[in-house]
Amino acid sequence: MHLTLEEINLLEKRHRANLINSISGIKSANLVGTKSDQNNTNLSIVSSVVHLGSNPPLLGYIQRPRGVERHTFENILATKKYTLNSIHSGIIKSAHQTSARYARDLSEFEQTGLSEEWLNEFHAPFVKEAHIKIALELVEVIPISVNDTELVIGKIQDIYFPSAIYKPDGHLAIYEADTVGISGLDTYLKTEKITRLSYAQPNIPLKEI
Amino acid sequence: MHLTLEEINLLEKRHRANLINSISGIKSANLVGTKSDQNNTNLSIVSSVVHLGSNPPLLGYIQRPRGVERHTFENILATKKYTLNSIHSGIIKSAHQTSARYARDLSEFEQTGLSEEWLNEFHAPFVKEAHIKIALELVEVIPISVNDTELVIGKIQDIYFPSAIYKPDGHLAIYEADTVGISGLDTYLKTEKITRLSYAQPNIPLKEI
Repeated sequence: MHLTLEEINLLEKRHRANLINSISGIKSANLVGTKSDQNNTNLSIVSSVVHLGSNPPLLGYIQRPRGVERHTFENILATKKYTLNSIHSGIIKSAHQTSARYARDLSEFEQTGLSEEWLNEFHAPFVKEAHIKIALELVEVIPISVNDTELVIGKIQDIYFPSAIYKPDGHLAIYEADTVGISGLDTYLKTEKITRLSYAQPNIPLKEI
Repeated sequence: MHLTLEEINLLEKRHRANLINSISGIKSANLVGTKSDQNNTNLSIVSSVVHLGSNPPLLGYIQRPRGVERHTFENILATKKYTLNSIHSGIIKSAHQTSARYARDLSEFEQTGLSEEWLNEFHAPFVKEAHIKIALELVEVIPISVNDTELVIGKIQDIYFPSAIYKPDGHLAIYEADTVGISGLDTYLKTEKITRLSYAQPNIPLKEI
């Protein structure tokens, strides 16, 4: 099937959102934890986390346009601290429910049944039920003027993960910790390892490692 | 297990790259197809594609620092045209092999056994073996000064996909087309649907859809 830009632009809004959100591939599934200066906690699901670099260790995510209330992002701007928490199959419904538009003074932790966890005196809450937890400090917010989104860049401060999935060469087998992925806006996927391949070089056959 | 930023910074370079590339979650797996002004084609694997918006339909990916030769990116800058092609389980080894550093005049298509496909008179080549194919026009390259990477933004021009995975509401079931994900630098994952959930609203139970 072939759709042109003109045909995509003519699609009903929600239909187009479903299609374009699905087409780029499998997405990561994380919960962003924050706490406001007034000590209100907040939790929201994000599927746009992207690796920016390892030295320094930087992660980005795409913040949707300003205009509607964005409690999580306001907390990040005010406090410079946030956490990322991996979603596994046991907490999919609670994680998805965080995307509902709750009033500012309601915590998505309480509303969805997920538990706050406070680690290493970090300002922002972690999700106790998550298996992989990352503390981040805001580095920069880069405006993406073409559609009023923003790239939010954070530097990793602490990471927490099960030692059972930590391989001797540093690889973290997140698929062994029941980590899920997201397809489109609302579909959750389990993953299973097919293969791990050696570093690619010209004219040298790849090996499974 | 807990690692602080100081401990992460002390890790051996490759070990740290494996760890930090793994920790943010499951990544999409795509091949970027380009053609230079001299008609040399190029193909490279990318795991950092991120959805930026549906109206207009925009996708981004993170380009690693300038300095080494980056044939694909040079072609994008020169021609403004590129394609994204989904990786499925049958082409994992060829896709991974495109990350080897081939000389400028060698095409990764020839070197890896993947086939060029030319559709709708678009300047850049698609990967014939891929199931989901996207034609993109460069919109903007945004520098990320903190680590000399760049966010490459493209507007979707055409999309091609199997009609069998196109749901009535626009959702594209890419996991039904054997699309794989990537964990870390080199590990390929298959995916399977767990559930699809309704739009979340406060105090309304989620439904499976």
